[in-house]
Amino acid sequence: MTDRYFVDSDGELLFVPELGALVLHTELGPLRVSPGEIAVVPRGIRFRVELPGAEPGYAHSGYTVARGYLCENFGAAFTLPERGPIGANGLANERDFRSPQAAFEERSHTVQVVNKFGGNLWAADYDHSPLDVVAWHGSYAPYKYDTASFMVIGTVSFDHPDPSIFTVLTSPTDTPGLANCDFVIFAPRWLVGENTFRPPWFHRNVMSEYMGLVAGAYDAKAEGFVPGGGSLHNTFASHGPDADTYARASTAELVPQKLDGTLAFMFESRWMILPTAQAMDAGFRQRDYDAVWSGLSRNFR
Amino acid sequence: MTDRYFVDSDGELLFVPELGALVLHTELGPLRVSPGEIAVVPRGIRFRVELPGAEPGYAHSGYTVARGYLCENFGAAFTLPERGPIGANGLANERDFRSPQAAFEERSHTVQVVNKFGGNLWAADYDHSPLDVVAWHGSYAPYKYDTASFMVIGTVSFDHPDPSIFTVLTSPTDTPGLANCDFVIFAPRWLVGENTFRPPWFHRNVMSEYMGLVAGAYDAKAEGFVPGGGSLHNTFASHGPDADTYARASTAELVPQKLDGTLAFMFESRWMILPTAQAMDAGFRQRDYDAVWSGLSRNFR
Amino acid sequence: MTDRYFVDSDGELLFVPELGALVLHTELGPLRVSPGEIAVVPRGIRFRVELPGAEPGYAHSGYTVARGYLCENFGAAFTLPERGPIGANGLANERDFRSPQAAFEERSHTVQVVNKFGGNLWAADYDHSPLDVVAWHGSYAPYKYDTASFMVIGTVSFDHPDPSIFTVLTSPTDTPGLANCDFVIFAPRWLVGENTFRPPWFHRNVMSEYMGLVAGAYDAKAEGFVPGGGSLHNTFASHGPDADTYARASTAELVPQKLDGTLAFMFESRWMILPTAQAMDAGFRQRDYDAVWSGLSRNFR
Amino acid sequence: MTDRYFVDSDGELLFVPELGALVLHTELGPLRVSPGEIAVVPRGIRFRVELPGAEPGYAHSGYTVARGYLCENFGAAFTLPERGPIGANGLANERDFRSPQAAFEERSHTVQVVNKFGGNLWAADYDHSPLDVVAWHGSYAPYKYDTASFMVIGTVSFDHPDPSIFTVLTSPTDTPGLANCDFVIFAPRWLVGENTFRPPWFHRNVMSEYMGLVAGAYDAKAEGFVPGGGSLHNTFASHGPDADTYARASTAELVPQKLDGTLAFMFESRWMILPTAQAMDAGFRQRDYDAVWSGLSRNFR
Amino acid sequence: MTDRYFVDSDGELLFVPELGALVLHTELGPLRVSPGEIAVVPRGIRFRVELPGAEPGYAHSGYTVARGYLCENFGAAFTLPERGPIGANGLANERDFRSPQAAFEERSHTVQVVNKFGGNLWAADYDHSPLDVVAWHGSYAPYKYDTASFMVIGTVSFDHPDPSIFTVLTSPTDTPGLANCDFVIFAPRWLVGENTFRPPWFHRNVMSEYMGLVAGAYDAKAEGFVPGGGSLHNTFASHGPDADTYARASTAELVPQKLDGTLAFMFESRWMILPTAQAMDAGFRQRDYDAVWSGLSRNFR
Amino acid sequence: MTDRYFVDSDGELLFVPELGALVLHTELGPLRVSPGEIAVVPRGIRFRVELPGAEPGYAHSGYTVARGYLCENFGAAFTLPERGPIGANGLANERDFRSPQAAFEERSHTVQVVNKFGGNLWAADYDHSPLDVVAWHGSYAPYKYDTASFMVIGTVSFDHPDPSIFTVLTSPTDTPGLANCDFVIFAPRWLVGENTFRPPWFHRNVMSEYMGLVAGAYDAKAEGFVPGGGSLHNTFASHGPDADTYARASTAELVPQKLDGTLAFMFESRWMILPTAQAMDAGFRQRDYDAVWSGLSRNFR
Repeated sequence: MTDRYFVDSDGELLFVPELGALVLHTELGPLRVSPGEIAVVPRGIRFRVELPGAEPGYAHSGYTVARGYLCENFGAAFTLPERGPIGANGLANERDFRSPQAAFEERSHTVQVVNKFGGNLWAADYDHSPLDVVAWHGSYAPYKYDTASFMVIGTVSFDHPDPSIFTVLTSPTDTPGLANCDFVIFAPRWLVGENTFRPPWFHRNVMSEYMGLVAGAYDAKAEGFVPGGGSLHNTFASHGPDADTYARASTAELVPQKLDGTLAFMFESRWMILPTAQAMDAGFRQRDYDAVWSGLSRNFR
Repeated sequence: MTDRYFVDSDGELLFVPELGALVLHTELGPLRVSPGEIAVVPRGIRFRVELPGAEPGYAHSGYTVARGYLCENFGAAFTLPERGPIGANGLANERDFRSPQAAFEERSHTVQVVNKFGGNLWAADYDHSPLDVVAWHGSYAPYKYDTASFMVIGTVSFDHPDPSIFTVLTSPTDTPGLANCDFVIFAPRWLVGENTFRPPWFHRNVMSEYMGLVAGAYDAKAEGFVPGGGSLHNTFASHGPDADTYARASTAELVPQKLDGTLAFMFESRWMILPTAQAMDAGFRQRDYDAVWSGLSRNFR
Repeated sequence: MTDRYFVDSDGELLFVPELGALVLHTELGPLRVSPGEIAVVPRGIRFRVELPGAEPGYAHSGYTVARGYLCENFGAAFTLPERGPIGANGLANERDFRSPQAAFEERSHTVQVVNKFGGNLWAADYDHSPLDVVAWHGSYAPYKYDTASFMVIGTVSFDHPDPSIFTVLTSPTDTPGLANCDFVIFAPRWLVGENTFRPPWFHRNVMSEYMGLVAGAYDAKAEGFVPGGGSLHNTFASHGPDADTYARASTAELVPQKLDGTLAFMFESRWMILPTAQAMDAGFRQRDYDAVWSGLSRNFR
Repeated sequence: MTDRYFVDSDGELLFVPELGALVLHTELGPLRVSPGEIAVVPRGIRFRVELPGAEPGYAHSGYTVARGYLCENFGAAFTLPERGPIGANGLANERDFRSPQAAFEERSHTVQVVNKFGGNLWAADYDHSPLDVVAWHGSYAPYKYDTASFMVIGTVSFDHPDPSIFTVLTSPTDTPGLANCDFVIFAPRWLVGENTFRPPWFHRNVMSEYMGLVAGAYDAKAEGFVPGGGSLHNTFASHGPDADTYARASTAELVPQKLDGTLAFMFESRWMILPTAQAMDAGFRQRDYDAVWSGLSRNFR
Repeated sequence: MTDRYFVDSDGELLFVPELGALVLHTELGPLRVSPGEIAVVPRGIRFRVELPGAEPGYAHSGYTVARGYLCENFGAAFTLPERGPIGANGLANERDFRSPQAAFEERSHTVQVVNKFGGNLWAADYDHSPLDVVAWHGSYAPYKYDTASFMVIGTVSFDHPDPSIFTVLTSPTDTPGLANCDFVIFAPRWLVGENTFRPPWFHRNVMSEYMGLVAGAYDAKAEGFVPGGGSLHNTFASHGPDADTYARASTAELVPQKLDGTLAFMFESRWMILPTAQAMDAGFRQRDYDAVWSGLSRNFR
Repeated sequence: MTDRYFVDSDGELLFVPELGALVLHTELGPLRVSPGEIAVVPRGIRFRVELPGAEPGYAHSGYTVARGYLCENFGAAFTLPERGPIGANGLANERDFRSPQAAFEERSHTVQVVNKFGGNLWAADYDHSPLDVVAWHGSYAPYKYDTASFMVIGTVSFDHPDPSIFTVLTSPTDTPGLANCDFVIFAPRWLVGENTFRPPWFHRNVMSEYMGLVAGAYDAKAEGFVPGGGSLHNTFASHGPDADTYARASTAELVPQKLDGTLAFMFESRWMILPTAQAMDAGFRQRDYDAVWSGLSRNFR
């Protein structure tokens, strides 16, 4: 993708690499984004993507492929959530978000710019690179963030807070408390809740939850959820841990436990998420997904 | 205080018992409040206070004295803080606040009602008890809360969140984020922060901090702070852990640690807190309070 | 409907029974709703409906049919309107809304759950009843309300306030003053306005008005509007009392008059309401609805 | 007061004439205000006051004295309250407030301007009249209002709304729902509430209530309250109807009743109102004011 | 259009005449609107349009045709923008907006009313004119505004403010700062910015910009933009001055310069603007519109 | 002032140097502030002040004295005003505000820290410099701003905007539009208003206006206002240009005019400003200040 550029006029793009790093060459300069990091390219900003192994100026990283997750956000730009009593230090902090330094390139041959506009893709030929910005200032810029900077907050007494406590970025709506989209991570952390069922609980709610896994295992699903995979629980669809996780968590001794080497995340939205026909028809779609709950039995008599 | 009643027309009253329980006989019914619990009597509500040992209808508790802390709040009524990403389950929950059932008493002799009005105390004789309300409904009522219901939230990764994360009740102002008064507790909890200085840090800020101790030890002050004691760091006064605490926390191995059997609290206010002459002149006032920091030395060269 | 359950994932449901009571067996317990009462089942809550005549545990009511109105609300959940100067006692009061006590049922055979999701109906078989909740707490629950508890407010001097003064519940939007949907009732009340045309006036406005009648007669329409019927005046469609009502109200002596034994209501929405083809083609649709205004003549010369 | 002018730099002035009309000659023109009307002169606007009997240009009205009430408002300027569900027609309407037409006067001799500034009165001599404005436009202007234009709203079913429903003008604070000062009138109206105690109830609340009477009788006080008089119930002072009113209202048959020929009002404030020494020491102050409640007896056994 | 009337139930209409005046006969009276003026007819208000040459009661103006621009606003009604530090005198002022005096007409023959409702046009026959309103009061009324009353604000030092500084009317959304539609004018004004590129700069942004020209020349486009023409730069489409303008402005001496005899305007919207097929296929559409930028060369080396 | 430090616990300090530069050595590093620049030291931050001539590390500037203006702000911290339609480039821009780089000093002798706390000054001895911060991050920091960066906006057509259009910084209150304090500058700019009286007009308003002059002449006062001087027009005090200015501006030909080499400013406050006794009694106070208006005569007949 050296001579083809992309721009999304409909929404901003949130990249969550899972396998292999990306270099996003944007109008405002390059961003290298590795698994564990995320990046956002604002609506209307032109860029092209390269794999760092093929790039001059970067140490050869061995990556020749890249895989990950991409969220197209049609609502308000992602921003940090208002943190309330968490105060000025918890969760993600503004200073850990990095924007690129200006850079520019010259092209003497024809290049192609693909524009997503009004839900369609349009291609045009340019006689120059659109990445010809020699200096910039302002706040409407691409940025990246390393999730290792996220100060995870949780219960240090009992019970289990809502996963909103893991919000990294939010695309708010005009209704306070109701997000167009939240980006939420399940990062390495200590579990110390007492007298408590520690995994995510059984629930249904207004938010549609698309979940992905960057590394390790997710504590609500003992098996069948691998890095690069995804699950979707749409608005008001009931879900919770699988039967194995339920059994184990119900009987475990609740000593301090460190969840390490893991990074799961959610794109949560107030809207229904409609999978494409391609996704619905894919051979790798898990058609018996709900079988994990079949072993749950009645506990009340 | 069986024939004398009190009413505060200037503000609401927050009781934090430290030694011995109280029974608050209010117009809307009785509330028994023990150490570990708190209670609020709204502005303008008449009540009298008894020690439960002397009360018919309560098991004899052995308490013949009571001691504690009292905060008179002249601002907006205390309410739960907006919790932001903490969501619907963390910190204090509405359902754990208890208001009394209606009760009434008849008095055939003269009683006295003392009214704090405009900063002065006024006494009047009544030929009946003001606690003669036979039924009530509404939300302007006294309430109590057991701090053991407080779901303590904290870091489960690294660093140290602001103490606002321990807010139980707040008296907000019209400026979002700036409280007239916050009631904050340091309750039993796990410390699991890694690569971190775990005690409260050295700081100064706009809020005046009056601190009290109901039980146990406070983790920022190794000695000299006893239950029933209090400390005051007024607006923009620098403070932090004492030298012993500093030394110990700087070298300790950061394994999970449970702080148990402790309850400290703060009344935090945007206003300066002026001690009375009585307090300033008291023999028990610690005149060399700042000596605890004298052992701190320069660490940078 | 004993083995079939319904859940609406798209919106909440407002029931306005007109003929015969319903028992809504919901996940959070049963609600019996009779004509004169209303009920709301939140989005995503499973329930089944029975007629109380067939129910053990209820006195036989003689009802073997039920009829009424149903509003599916896709916007913010219905809530009480901010009452402004009306203060804390007028219109509907929070304490008159009743939620069910937890109840549960066990089913050993296959049942069907129908889910309205994304505008379509989806059916699934369960090997247990979804009404198996043995306890609950929270505020996201079904509720009912008896319109006889509604404190009707109106002019006690002259003129005629907007019908918004009869609002029981509102589904607000983010624009203050502009409702997604208002539920408004015309309940028994005194008419004492002097020097005034007392029936609803001639008007057109942004809100689409669907009107129904639970009992009695509606004071803006002398005939042709019967219980169980409905009228629709869409956004900016002009309407007002019929010619007979106009003539009578223009000449009546304005002594105090009690409107009794009546209950009309409106679903008012900022959106256009599109009738189904079934409704448009129904034999009982009143095709000469506008004839009631044909007798109105010019009054100005 | 033909050669002396007044200006209040500290607050705006609300005039409530009770006996005799006033002509307020302001910088922006003259306003004639009669009993039943009110007027407001904004902060910083110069004016002088005359009795209309002595004025050229007005029909001789026979008034040679004037008496009434004056409220100095130090908060936000009086404005119409947000009416909520009452809608666009109830209570006071913007179009009934009248501002003066520009007028000016020339003075060739020395006049005096008295300025209330910072709580003190300062006098200065001018060699011209300050009322020399020949034209103006804008919205910062004196205005008057006839209380007969007030569309009184009340219960037309049962119970008794808060007196906030009689708010004509409000000086809001930054806290929604909490007024710096409300101007509330008890104007002629129908009483039709059923199963209800119709007079104002016994209560205490945060607002200090200064009450005055322009004409007729006030329905919560059968005797002892005359036009030109005033009563003050400060913040959280309990009060209610006198014993006679209580007895009569508790046994009366609740047919529709017209309260006519009366105009009482309240200045309600969130602040304590401190009477002057002159008021406290006045011979006409009713020192046994609370005797009206001495006949009330216990009703519960 | 004497016997045909129009009403838009979907949105309000903003008229920008360019050639020839219009008389808008509305339910609330007539408005004559000439080039240089604009008019708004609210949603749901019936009107018919005449050319003033053919009208009794107007001086013959010689106009026998009319041409201009029309904006249908589906969002919140146009209103004045909050002006911030510009204060109370800049831009458009409320008092310069004029609504009609009531007028009415009688028709004894059949007339037609065309209603735009739900995106479609519906015609109905009336036996009377809908313009039969003999008096009205309120604020929901048609209005006109003369752009010569617009106090143009701009830089008087250096640099170039955003064109939002030329906003006459805005249709706000619930998101502060994000308009559904802004109506912006480029009116006669002085250019005095120093050390600055004075024409509109090269940019792309979220707002779609439809530009029209009422009179004179537009300073960002030296040729090819004539009165009655229009240009559309949709959301995030890059644009700026043509090459000739760029060259001239880059070398001009920056003395004070008066732009006179010109009136361009923009309809700016947060939404994409989709041209009709008729517009896309029109012979007069400028298919090489982007050629004006082809002469721009690289300036950085 | 090398061994004495100051801290204001009551408010933040805005420095406006007029003669000679200052170096503010703050806890977060040094700021050199010259005439034409301003600086703000936040509440609670310790600092000492030196004249740059005496400083190692600065070029000798020849300044051996310094003079200027100081505003102590007890309200919300100064911030940029919301600019409304002025958009993102006008007035002051965030990026032109500069905070210091961390620096620290060591002192081996006793130094004194003076604390303004609760309206009083308190001195304490330290055995180290409080300026011992070796690194910092955050946003609560001192800053400076060069007024030459201020993009002055004004009329480019006719009339005269409010001076709020010159707002650099504002200390807002909770009431939108009502500042606790505004810092406003009258910087070099073009005057091009046509058909207009160009100097500031005659007015009185709620804001108290303290005016100072850093350089040049102020266009509303032809003489008697020198750099280093000040004028105070308290709340609702009438004022305007002097008689000479009035005469000249009323007859001048309104060609473009550049005001250059001037810098006046205002501290504007919603509060009355009380001069000290020292100021009132000063020999240099201009006791006949109002004589400049004595030559104004009547213009209307």
